[in-house]
Order: sequence, then structure tokens, then C-alpha cells
Amino acid sequence: MVQAVQRAARILRELATSGPRLGVTELADRMGVAKPTAHALLRTLEAEGLVVQDRESAKYQLGPDLVLLGNAYLDTQELRTRSVTWADLLATQSGEAVWVAVLNGDHMLVVHHAFRPEGAVQILEVGASIPWSTCALGKAVVAFAPEEERERLLSAALAVLTGASITDAGALGEQLDQARRLGYAVEDQESALGDAGIAAPVFDRSGGVAGAIGVVGPVERLLADPAGQGARQEPRQELAVAVRETARSLSRDLGAPRGTARRAGA
Amino acid sequence: MVQAVQRAARILRELATSGPRLGVTELADRMGVAKPTAHALLRTLEAEGLVVQDRESAKYQLGPDLVLLGNAYLDTQELRTRSVTWADLLATQSGEAVWVAVLNGDHMLVVHHAFRPEGAVQILEVGASIPWSTCALGKAVVAFAPEEERERLLSAALAVLTGASITDAGALGEQLDQARRLGYAVEDQESALGDAGIAAPVFDRSGGVAGAIGVVGPVERLLADPAGQGARQEPRQELAVAVRETARSLSRDLGAPRGTARRAGA
Repeated sequence: MVQAVQRAARILRELATSGPRLGVTELADRMGVAKPTAHALLRTLEAEGLVVQDRESAKYQLGPDLVLLGNAYLDTQELRTRSVTWADLLATQSGEAVWVAVLNGDHMLVVHHAFRPEGAVQILEVGASIPWSTCALGKAVVAFAPEEERERLLSAALAVLTGASITDAGALGEQLDQARRLGYAVEDQESALGDAGIAAPVFDRSGGVAGAIGVVGPVERLLADPAGQGARQEPRQELAVAVRETARSLSRDLGAPRGTARRAGA
Repeated sequence: MVQAVQRAARILRELATSGPRLGVTELADRMGVAKPTAHALLRTLEAEGLVVQDRESAKYQLGPDLVLLGNAYLDTQELRTRSVTWADLLATQSGEAVWVAVLNGDHMLVVHHAFRPEGAVQILEVGASIPWSTCALGKAVVAFAPEEERERLLSAALAVLTGASITDAGALGEQLDQARRLGYAVEDQESALGDAGIAAPVFDRSGGVAGAIGVVGPVERLLADPAGQGARQEPRQELAVAVRETARSLSRDLGAPRGTARRAGA
């Protein structure tokens, strides 16, 4: 490992999470390095367009070239580029917002977002990062991930975002088993109060799971409570079917072997 | 300057522009470094989530953490966060798409995009990077930039994207002078055939120009040709006024001294 590069990456993360603006001394202290070391790294990052120095305060913040690099990453994502048409179709069909996401560490990174057709003001969620265990997209991916990855993710600490976030690995494992049987996963206000999600896995030509696509919206519209007793809610069947079929079409578009897509719950 | 960090940044740029996937030998050749050097840099970047290695081909590509860093940059952009409401209002008022951009080197980086209300399928342009001299946003910013920056940008080679792109510094300088008088700048198919733009500068609390906001759309809707003789077209007056007034409101929102916003062409 190249220490200077590790430290430069650390500076970018510090500015992203603790920022927005930090001074040289502040950064040197956080990183436990001498001030001249931090200064040399910052000047280099600045020359490369990855950080910028505020003229007035002399503090540093992230630089605009990071947006260009982030977009270049998104453009290399075949899942994203192929999903645009399918996501639009699903949004039209379901009347809900559609997200496409990939697993990044233990979070789902949203790489595409088709707005709800209704057209109220909506915030674009591309780039949002959500703990895998709290969203349908994450459950859909992990349910079909290789055994060792599934075990690793299940045995780590599970994120708590709402009172409904699942923290028991056993209960979550059961949901993953169910997702494998049904071909889709469900979230019931586990990442945000009032929000639900239904998502299905997307496979690529290797036959492995590449990510997930799903609808996101108010729990009242996405989930049904036929018994009316406030028990754990089931997804509306027509939505779940639409999500699963879209995921299957997108998988085929990505070159997934026919059997793969079908094994996902058919 | 820290050489290892320069080289790491170079790798990211190579992957962004020449990629999407490059092998170690390929990268080492392009950078003129030994293969073990390139390999050590790549392994470090991979451990930091900034590149990922494709399992099958063993080639490297950009990593998902770059999206998180790019989004963190956008969130620190006060111009972007403050512009959301104003951009929506202008989009509703004008019936056109609205872009907000900042100058990054000699390109305009789009940091916010409010869709055209009409709602046909539209591609989000946040992260797009456009040569300053070919768009109204760039002209609006450079017209109000400090004298030395304006001269530096005017004296460099001017980008050619269409037959209408302006390559004569004198002619472009006259457009900048006019933009200073009117408080808005115009593009007539200089970055893309069929597209036009009208943009006005946005100032921040330092009184300096922070970026620009403007409408982008078909030349037939944005520009008027009263003489009907195909001469250089003028912007539709009601659109130009709406753009300029929105820019002024956004400037005040950013804390620009009253005089600053008013000097912009009032």
C-alpha cells in the first residue's frame, strides 16, 4: 500500500463526512500527521482539482472534479445505462419512483432514479447510500449473493435507522430466504418512517447478482394490510409482480442466462 | 507536490477518460511508470474504494465511492442548495429546463438541473461539463469574472462543438461586454445544434460571481427572429427578464450585497 495515497483518500473522506471545510491544522490533527505533511497532500490534491481552498478562510473543501469522476463511474455501470428504459417503464406502470442500486461495502448505492410520474417536486437520489439491511434493494441483492458474502453481511452489526429497522440476524435471514423464494424483497419503514419499498435482484451475464431495481414510496400505497390489524404488511401483489418482471427483463438485457433470471423466484 | 498522489489522481483521470477498464500494464505504459509502481497505486486505490478490479478480466475501473465524494462536493455547494427553489420556479415560469453551473477550469460544471415541467423523458445533466465559451452559463460567469480571469480564458484556445461555436476572441469579448450591459448572456446552438440558452450571473456574499443560472431548450422556443431573415437571433424578452430576475433573487439569497446584483445589467 502507498501511504501517501491512503492519506490523500483519508483527507477526501474527512472532508466528505466531517467537512464541508477544514483547515490544515484541523486535518493534520484528525489524521495524526505533521502539519507540513497534511499541507503537502492538500496542495497536491488541490493541483489535481480534487480539493479547493476557500480564498477567505484558507480552509479546504472537496473539489468539483470529484463530480466528473463520480459521473464517469456511473457511466461505466452497465446496470445503470441499461436500466434507464426499464426504470421509466416501471415508474409509468406503477405510478411510483423507481430506484436502481448496487451493493457497495455494506450499503446500497443508488445509481439510477426514475421519478414518480405524478411530478410533485422530487429530489434526485442518485448517489444516495443506504444500509443494505434497511431497504428492499439491499435485501434483494444479499438474498442472491454468494453464501459467504451473505453470511459476512448478516453477521456484522445491522444498521438502525428507524424503530422498524431489523437488528436480529435470524429474522433478517428469514426475510432473505423468503426473498429467494418469491423473487422480490420488501421494506416496511425500515429506512425511513412512512416509506416502503419492493425490489428484485438483477443478474448479469456471469449469472451473478449485479444489483437490484425496485419501487419506493409511501407505505400506504405500496403495502396492503388485508387483515386490517396492523400486522406485518404484505406488498401489493400487482406491484411486486411488476417489479419482479422488470428485474427479469433488465437481467436478460444485461445478458443473464435465462435460467438465472428464472431461478429468482419464478 | 506528493508524486504518489499525483500519480493516483492521474490513474483516476485515465480511467475516467480512456477507460472504462484498463489493465495494470496498459496504465503503467500510459503513465510511463514501472508496472510494480502502477500495481501498488492501484491496490491502494482499490482498498480505498476509489477503483475496483473486475473479477473476470482483472482490469481496473473507477469505484463507487467516487459518487459519494462527488455528491458530498455538490452538497457543500451553497449555490446548488440555495438554487433548488429558484430553479423550480423559473422552470415553471418559463416552461423550460433550468441549469445552474459553476466555472471549473475552462468548463462549466452543471451542479443543479430542474427538469422542464412538460415532463417528456429528460436526462439529468448534473455533472455535465461544457466549455465555457459555448454556453450562455459560461458567458454569464466570465462576463462578470475578475479582469485577469476573463483575459486568461479569452486568450486560450476556444472550444469548437458546432459550426456556430465562437472561436474569435474579439467577437466573444463583444458578447461578454453585451452580457455585462444586459445582465444576461445568450447561446445560439454553440454547444449543440438546435439548442439555445439564456443565462444570468449569480453573486455571493463576497460580491464576486459564484456561478450562473439559466434556461436551456430548443432554439425555436428560446430565441426570437423578428426580422425573419435568419440573422443572429435575439432571446425572447420575457424569458431573458425571468432569467435575470431569478439570478438576482438567488444572489440575494446567497447574501450578495444589493448593489452587486443590481450592477448585473439593471
